[in-house]
Amino acid sequence: MQTIVECIPNFSEGTNRQKIKSIVQALLAGPDVYLLDTQIDADHNRTVVTFVGSRESVGEAALRAIGRAAELIDLNVHRGVHPRMGATDVVPFVPIKDVHLNDCVEIARRVAEQTWRQFRVPTYLYEEAARDPRRKNLEYIRQRQFERLREEVLRDPERRPDFGEADLHPTAGATAVGARNFLIAYNINLNTTDLSVAKAIARKIRASDGGLPAVKAIGVELKALGMVQVSMNLTDYETTSIGTVFDAVAEEAARAGVAIESSEIVGLVPRRAIENVAIQHLKLQNYSSRLIFESQLARARGDASESGDIQQD
Amino acid sequence: MQTIVECIPNFSEGTNRQKIKSIVQALLAGPDVYLLDTQIDADHNRTVVTFVGSRESVGEAALRAIGRAAELIDLNVHRGVHPRMGATDVVPFVPIKDVHLNDCVEIARRVAEQTWRQFRVPTYLYEEAARDPRRKNLEYIRQRQFERLREEVLRDPERRPDFGEADLHPTAGATAVGARNFLIAYNINLNTTDLSVAKAIARKIRASDGGLPAVKAIGVELKALGMVQVSMNLTDYETTSIGTVFDAVAEEAARAGVAIESSEIVGLVPRRAIENVAIQHLKLQNYSSRLIFESQLARARGDASESGDIQQD
Repeated sequence: MQTIVECIPNFSEGTNRQKIKSIVQALLAGPDVYLLDTQIDADHNRTVVTFVGSRESVGEAALRAIGRAAELIDLNVHRGVHPRMGATDVVPFVPIKDVHLNDCVEIARRVAEQTWRQFRVPTYLYEEAARDPRRKNLEYIRQRQFERLREEVLRDPERRPDFGEADLHPTAGATAVGARNFLIAYNINLNTTDLSVAKAIARKIRASDGGLPAVKAIGVELKALGMVQVSMNLTDYETTSIGTVFDAVAEEAARAGVAIESSEIVGLVPRRAIENVAIQHLKLQNYSSRLIFESQLARARGDASESGDIQQD
Repeated sequence: MQTIVECIPNFSEGTNRQKIKSIVQALLAGPDVYLLDTQIDADHNRTVVTFVGSRESVGEAALRAIGRAAELIDLNVHRGVHPRMGATDVVPFVPIKDVHLNDCVEIARRVAEQTWRQFRVPTYLYEEAARDPRRKNLEYIRQRQFERLREEVLRDPERRPDFGEADLHPTAGATAVGARNFLIAYNINLNTTDLSVAKAIARKIRASDGGLPAVKAIGVELKALGMVQVSMNLTDYETTSIGTVFDAVAEEAARAGVAIESSEIVGLVPRRAIENVAIQHLKLQNYSSRLIFESQLARARGDASESGDIQQD
C-alpha cells in the first residue's frame, strides 16, 4: 500500500451485531483495505468504523459498505440520540500518507456520485468536498435529520442533494460524503473545580473567537475527578500543533493561577503529531526520520511502507 | 525478527574500501542481519559499522566480521589518530527490542570467548559485560593501545585478557567486547560566545559532578556559528530523558541570562526517546502505542514487528 487514505463511515445501527458485522464484511471484501477500529454505540444507535485503504481501494470499499447498509438499515424504525439522516450517515475521507487533501476531495465526489448511481441513495458533499460553501458544515446539511429532510427535500431547492433527485431513499435516507484533514481530539485537565476558568481559556484559544487557527475548544467539568477540562479538536495539526495548543493553555492557566494536571489524546493520532511536540519543545534543528532508529531499520529491511514519514495534507 | 539487538563494531581500517567491503560482506553472510550504517573515517583510519540482528543471529554475525578483519588488518602497519588495540577494536551489543541488557551481556561474553577460540584473538570484556569493575571503562583497557599493550600484557597480570593467553594476536591485536544501553548523542546550542557558560552548565548537569544520572556533558565552542554548545551523551535515556536534560539546561541557561538557540541529535535515536519528550512535556496521562495511527495500522496489517514499542533495557 503506497498511499494511505483513512475513511470513517458512520452507520445508523448500534445494536444489531449481525447487521454491523455484515457491513464490515462487505467493506473488507476487496483488496488493500485494513480495519482499524469499530465503535458500536447503543445509545446513539450508531457504529463508527475506521479503516484505511490506498487511494485506489478506499472508495470502492466505502461503496461496498454503503450498499450493504442500504440493504440492511431502515431509517423509518431507527431511534437514537445522535442526529442522522441516512443508513450510512457520513463518510469522511482523510489523507494519511503520500496523498493530498485534494485527492480525498476527488475520492469523496466519486463515491458520492456512485452512491447515487449504484444504490439510488442521494448524497450531499461536505467539508472540503463541498461545492456549496454552506455545506462545508455537516450540521447545516443534517440539521433536519431523516424525518424532516425527506419532506423538505421535495420542495426546498436549498435541500437538494449534490447527487440524486429531490427525494430521499425510502429506507436508507441520504448520505453526506466529505474530505477533511486528520482531526485530533485533545483534552487538557486543569487542577481546579472552577468551570469558568476552563471556559475562559477555551474562548481565548479557539479559532472561532479569534484564537489559534484550526482549534475548536470548549470548557467542561470533570466532576468525578474534581477538575475542569479544556476539551479540543485540532482540525489541522500542521497549522496548530498539539505543542502550540498546550503552551497556549499553560500560559493562560498560569495567568489564572491554575496548574495543568495532565492531558490526554482521545482516539488515534498520527505519529508525526507526537514527534512535532518534541521537535518544537527541544528546538531540534536537524530532525528527520533518518535519525529514527526504527526508520533506518525499516529501510535496511526494505520495508518501504514503514520507513516514510506520514504526510498529512 | 522478534528480538532486536544492535551491534556497532569498530574496525581499524579507514582507507582500503576493498577490505571494508569484505568485512561487511562477511557480517551480512548469514540470516537475520541488517546493515544500518557504515562510517568510514580516513583520519581515524577506522570504520564504524552499525547493524542489527536477533538475539540468536547478532553474535554470529559479529564473529564472522571479527574473523575476516583478523585476516585482513595488520595493526603493525596501522596509523590513525583514534586510539585502538585491535583489527576489530571494540564490539558493543545494545538491547533494542524485547531483549534486556543482561541478554546482551551474555551475547558479549559468548562472542568474546569465541573470538579467542576461533581466531586466537584475545578479548577484554567492558561496560556491563565487564567482570573486573575497572574494565567497565573502555579507556582503562585500551589506554596502552596496540604497541604498548602487547609488551605489558606479557608481564602485567592486570593487563591479562578475559579470554585468551597473556599475549596479543601478532597482527590482529586484541578486541574489547561489551554490552551497554543505547547511547544518545545530544547537543544544545546556546546563544552566546562565552564558553565559560557552556562549561558551567555542563558541570552542573553531568553525573560525574553530581548532576543528572546517566549524563555525560562538556562545554565546547562553535566558533563558526558564534555560539557555544553543551555537548552530551545520554547513556540511559530511560533514566534521564532528552526532555529532562533539555529542561535542566534551559533552567541553567535562563539563570545565566542566555537563550537556547537550538538542539541537535547526532546519530540515531530510538523513536521512544523522542516520544518521551512529548509525553513528559504534555503530561500525557494515557499514552501508549495504541494511540498511534501507524501502530494500529501495522497491527491491522499483521505486521507485528512494526507495531510494538521499542524496549530499551
